[in-house]
Amino acid sequence: MQPTIWFERKGARITAMNKKIEVGILGATGMVGQRFVSLLENHPWFELRWLGASDRSAGKSYAEACSWRLRDAMPASVREMPVHECRTGHSPKLVFASLDSKIAGEVEKEFARAGHVVVSNSSNYRMEADVPLLIPEVNADHLGLIEVQRTNRQWKGMIVTNPNCTTVGLVMTLAPLEAAFGIDKVLMTSMQAVSGAGYPGVPTLDIMGNVIPYISGEEDKVERETQKLLGKFLDGRVQAAKLVVSAHCNRVLVEDGHTESISVALKTKATVEGLKEVWRKYRSAPQERNLPSAPKHPIVVRDEHDRPQVKFDVNEGHGMATVVGRVRTCPVLQFKYTALSHNTIRGAAGAALLNAELMKTEGLLD
Amino acid sequence: MQPTIWFERKGARITAMNKKIEVGILGATGMVGQRFVSLLENHPWFELRWLGASDRSAGKSYAEACSWRLRDAMPASVREMPVHECRTGHSPKLVFASLDSKIAGEVEKEFARAGHVVVSNSSNYRMEADVPLLIPEVNADHLGLIEVQRTNRQWKGMIVTNPNCTTVGLVMTLAPLEAAFGIDKVLMTSMQAVSGAGYPGVPTLDIMGNVIPYISGEEDKVERETQKLLGKFLDGRVQAAKLVVSAHCNRVLVEDGHTESISVALKTKATVEGLKEVWRKYRSAPQERNLPSAPKHPIVVRDEHDRPQVKFDVNEGHGMATVVGRVRTCPVLQFKYTALSHNTIRGAAGAALLNAELMKTEGLLD
Amino acid sequence: MQPTIWFERKGARITAMNKKIEVGILGATGMVGQRFVSLLENHPWFELRWLGASDRSAGKSYAEACSWRLRDAMPASVREMPVHECRTGHSPKLVFASLDSKIAGEVEKEFARAGHVVVSNSSNYRMEADVPLLIPEVNADHLGLIEVQRTNRQWKGMIVTNPNCTTVGLVMTLAPLEAAFGIDKVLMTSMQAVSGAGYPGVPTLDIMGNVIPYISGEEDKVERETQKLLGKFLDGRVQAAKLVVSAHCNRVLVEDGHTESISVALKTKATVEGLKEVWRKYRSAPQERNLPSAPKHPIVVRDEHDRPQVKFDVNEGHGMATVVGRVRTCPVLQFKYTALSHNTIRGAAGAALLNAELMKTEGLLD
Amino acid sequence: MQPTIWFERKGARITAMNKKIEVGILGATGMVGQRFVSLLENHPWFELRWLGASDRSAGKSYAEACSWRLRDAMPASVREMPVHECRTGHSPKLVFASLDSKIAGEVEKEFARAGHVVVSNSSNYRMEADVPLLIPEVNADHLGLIEVQRTNRQWKGMIVTNPNCTTVGLVMTLAPLEAAFGIDKVLMTSMQAVSGAGYPGVPTLDIMGNVIPYISGEEDKVERETQKLLGKFLDGRVQAAKLVVSAHCNRVLVEDGHTESISVALKTKATVEGLKEVWRKYRSAPQERNLPSAPKHPIVVRDEHDRPQVKFDVNEGHGMATVVGRVRTCPVLQFKYTALSHNTIRGAAGAALLNAELMKTEGLLD
Repeated sequence: MQPTIWFERKGARITAMNKKIEVGILGATGMVGQRFVSLLENHPWFELRWLGASDRSAGKSYAEACSWRLRDAMPASVREMPVHECRTGHSPKLVFASLDSKIAGEVEKEFARAGHVVVSNSSNYRMEADVPLLIPEVNADHLGLIEVQRTNRQWKGMIVTNPNCTTVGLVMTLAPLEAAFGIDKVLMTSMQAVSGAGYPGVPTLDIMGNVIPYISGEEDKVERETQKLLGKFLDGRVQAAKLVVSAHCNRVLVEDGHTESISVALKTKATVEGLKEVWRKYRSAPQERNLPSAPKHPIVVRDEHDRPQVKFDVNEGHGMATVVGRVRTCPVLQFKYTALSHNTIRGAAGAALLNAELMKTEGLLD
Repeated sequence: MQPTIWFERKGARITAMNKKIEVGILGATGMVGQRFVSLLENHPWFELRWLGASDRSAGKSYAEACSWRLRDAMPASVREMPVHECRTGHSPKLVFASLDSKIAGEVEKEFARAGHVVVSNSSNYRMEADVPLLIPEVNADHLGLIEVQRTNRQWKGMIVTNPNCTTVGLVMTLAPLEAAFGIDKVLMTSMQAVSGAGYPGVPTLDIMGNVIPYISGEEDKVERETQKLLGKFLDGRVQAAKLVVSAHCNRVLVEDGHTESISVALKTKATVEGLKEVWRKYRSAPQERNLPSAPKHPIVVRDEHDRPQVKFDVNEGHGMATVVGRVRTCPVLQFKYTALSHNTIRGAAGAALLNAELMKTEGLLD
Repeated sequence: MQPTIWFERKGARITAMNKKIEVGILGATGMVGQRFVSLLENHPWFELRWLGASDRSAGKSYAEACSWRLRDAMPASVREMPVHECRTGHSPKLVFASLDSKIAGEVEKEFARAGHVVVSNSSNYRMEADVPLLIPEVNADHLGLIEVQRTNRQWKGMIVTNPNCTTVGLVMTLAPLEAAFGIDKVLMTSMQAVSGAGYPGVPTLDIMGNVIPYISGEEDKVERETQKLLGKFLDGRVQAAKLVVSAHCNRVLVEDGHTESISVALKTKATVEGLKEVWRKYRSAPQERNLPSAPKHPIVVRDEHDRPQVKFDVNEGHGMATVVGRVRTCPVLQFKYTALSHNTIRGAAGAALLNAELMKTEGLLD
Repeated sequence: MQPTIWFERKGARITAMNKKIEVGILGATGMVGQRFVSLLENHPWFELRWLGASDRSAGKSYAEACSWRLRDAMPASVREMPVHECRTGHSPKLVFASLDSKIAGEVEKEFARAGHVVVSNSSNYRMEADVPLLIPEVNADHLGLIEVQRTNRQWKGMIVTNPNCTTVGLVMTLAPLEAAFGIDKVLMTSMQAVSGAGYPGVPTLDIMGNVIPYISGEEDKVERETQKLLGKFLDGRVQAAKLVVSAHCNRVLVEDGHTESISVALKTKATVEGLKEVWRKYRSAPQERNLPSAPKHPIVVRDEHDRPQVKFDVNEGHGMATVVGRVRTCPVLQFKYTALSHNTIRGAAGAALLNAELMKTEGLLD
């Protein structure tokens, strides 16, 4: 694969999808696993054929093993599918992974070694130098790391990751600014939904009527992942972007949708209207290639004085768009705004799915 | 009154409180008015004798006129007190004011002109050059503006104000840093309680499961009030402090208590431990004079990784303390931390009450 | 119109809908009005052409006048539609009405007198002896009251009403039991959503972390409307059913969806399985005539031990189905179960819409 | 002990409390255990000296072992107390027990056998024929079962239990009615707080914006415990009361406080005012003996149209009173009303504590 080539192939479309690609899920019963199941129903390119979960679930049907928490009913097609242990040997080549990070490291490595393409939502390999941390709209060329990864690790398969749910919304708004103006500094305060903590996740007694000003490991992830995502892929490695990032992460009583109050300092002169225009015009590989999960408008800018709001905007672009509003000048840095992103779709299962779709168009799933 | 003198009188105590000072409330039926009623019950210095509210309420008993929303029951002593129109002529000299800002401007002026000491929670006069915007721990010497106010306006009475509920918690934490290190820049993102919007205030349909990233006028108040509060009183005027302040204000589903994610850049070298020490040692006029509503520790620093939290900390110091936690370095500015302050006690009724107590010790209520 | 005839016409289908029927809304900006707007978008039989609201809104565009509170965006087609005063003269013949009951009485009468077909969600005329209180699945023959109404009142138009949002879910489950077994007694305790109180409606400070055990007028409505709905239409009048009904109505922190704990005593022998079967087999005029808003299964019975739940079941049948679960014996009456119904769709706007659809098939809109 | 005697000793007071009675807690780190710790702080008769919890906690200090969830801070006196395994041998004779019912059966038996007085909140022994299920206001004479228990089981100690948290509020309101009028039937629908499920307990994703119409085992407990509590102690056994009870139990998004909608049919003629009077006048052993945890008014009747409400009333009588309101006639049974009771105080830790206080006055702790 030559990652630099894809820009020349812009506009290419998948024409002959005679047969869907079979996929499996590692961690199918968790919150993100359920989103995978939901998003894969009727997917035009992928067909769900295999479910892996904890040993406790193995041997049961999915309906028995899974405490389904999504508002839409469990797809009928998976109810009777058997749940397997997360072992190699029987699953399709392509697996989506949303395992607990305590075990994800070992399991994902085992699958990659055995020849699987592991498209992972877990944090374990995100910051590894030879593992792509990918947002298809932002850094599709980082897929070039896969060659390096194969050389380094001698895996027959590969691991590709998507960022933390809080990082995604932030970086979706930063990437066009970085391209247009250059970014110097970013300060972000998040108000994060409880679904980000999985299920059972946050106890009601902890969060009702409360704000929890701490999410384990989250701020560090946001600060470091942002630099990698906006970094340049050159000579087989990603050079972390130089921008400085600071994150305050808070949990609030919201079901789905991370709201972020963001301030930025840019490297070149810009205006509020200039930022809005850059965001509104932003289109990238997923839009150009018409990937099935790609939002038509990756960034939706709202002009109302009190948007985005979780209640109204979290499902924009089927949960794959980032909604931006309240763009204004910041006395301390230069500009400030609010961004909203769906944490279990764009921030997790949808992110991985879009990654796989991009990889398909790059021939990485053949 | 010579405001510069009080520092020499440190430690003075009120010894002969033979008779309580009678007080009234303008806007007694609103959320802040209810807090005034609650905090004035059994107050050692003040005795509630007069209730003013809208014309609609006038003529009724307080129990009839007021839709009491506090968890603790309405004090028996006020149930049968009559509610009056907010007109001068019959109320005590000292009035606490928590009127809607649409009418507060006119009513407060009328009362001040008629000789009343108006201790106000409304925003109308806060930024007037000759009106003290006061936090007793922070800028007690700004009371010196009263002489200027009297000269300018020829009022027999006066108006003294307290800051916006979001500003208070922020400035309580900034004042000791300004004194010890000097402050260059401050960036604050708030997650504010619904009680800050009064009653009926925020509709349930607007905020349940949601974050509202906008509160009308709030960010501007925080940015400008902070500069005035930390300003120097010199030659009859307050010179706004030079620090730059940027605020993002959000509403969340919390009853009482504003949580703030704060980043600061200081003018001189400091450490995380240095900040904590400065906060922990902070004592000021209200503590020194043992004012009845003064928290023993104006700033409480917590070392846990996940505090302050509304649920556990909002009533610290009877709702008059500011609780600080998660103090750490900030890659973009220098330090970051979380602060929590009770918005209708320290941020409103308790703030005004403490102002009046300070004024009493200055002889301004005689 | 001969209401007794329609049973013979069962199965009839509307074949030639060459032209949609134009409709207006009285009270278009309120919560139920917004649901009307939403449900009328792309309706196969009706076309929204006229919006009426308060004098305050008149003259504005709908987008300006309306504080849109539904999660799905305001349909583009109505954004620029002008809002009118609720006066006769220019609106289509068919109007859906969701006015505040303080003014609904006068306005609806005025429209009916002027020849309009008023399909109303307001409570004002529900219990009038010559006004149909209609649930199409339950008492379609009560439309026979329209002849009586016209004779009595000499209106060129007519008024037809739907029940209170709490009554609908209850009666949907009772009607098949009444038909199959006869009902003696019903005791219902509701846990009602805040959207039932309109917008701004319930203040957050009243309901967060709370249960309010009172909703003005609600229990009386449930008790009396149920008797009329299950009554027999005979000789030009509805004889109230003899069953005894008792309601406890409570408000809880739910957005949409009234949950009801119901106990019943039947007149003849039955079993838990017998009840379930009767509910599952229940089909009626709306299903037989394939009315556009009719749920395929008016009553959905769930066998899980912990359903129905608002989170998973409120939108069953596009919000038009009633979901029943936990059917079991009751030591005090005979059977007990839980029912759930969407209060602003099946309990308000969807109810009126289904009424109009039924009326269309009866030729009442010609 | 002669339980019939205490009525003759009414009014007796503990005069010489020279030394406090030492107590331990089995299950000290759970939600109810925390309430025990909180309520025992500064208790006039009891002194907390020993903490038992799971093996996982044993060996740690209480501050380390316990994820403290109460709003008031953990008492300083217990922070450094060691947590022990729940084994006999070192704890005080009197132990309060709030263990998970999975292990409570074995552990409590072991402690009773070893000579301990086990005052338990667990459900395991509640319905045993020789174990008192006790509400001191309601059935103090059931303590007579202890002699039977000792004879039957040959334990050196004993087990005394308090009812389920939902049963307590119901029976507190029923007992005076049973005494005054006789009760025929009771139908109760509960709206229960999440703290009743312990910690971590109910996941936020399950309950936010939702009602869960099921709580495992709860309805059966309410129905059977009520009959035992209101039963007569005669000839060494409790004859279950004949009244018929039916319960619908629901979970709602409330922190503490179970709200219950109750309908009753009485055996003799009564009036709404008669019920209120009976409740208002109700005093019993705990009040007569001035037990430290006894509420002055065990039942508080409110006349407002919309009370009791969790927000305002849950802490009535320090969480030990039951608040009743909306008393009115019921068309199906005879009367209906709403009751509210604090589920972790009166419904759990406070209930056990009051039981122990009563036992002290009966000489059962000597």
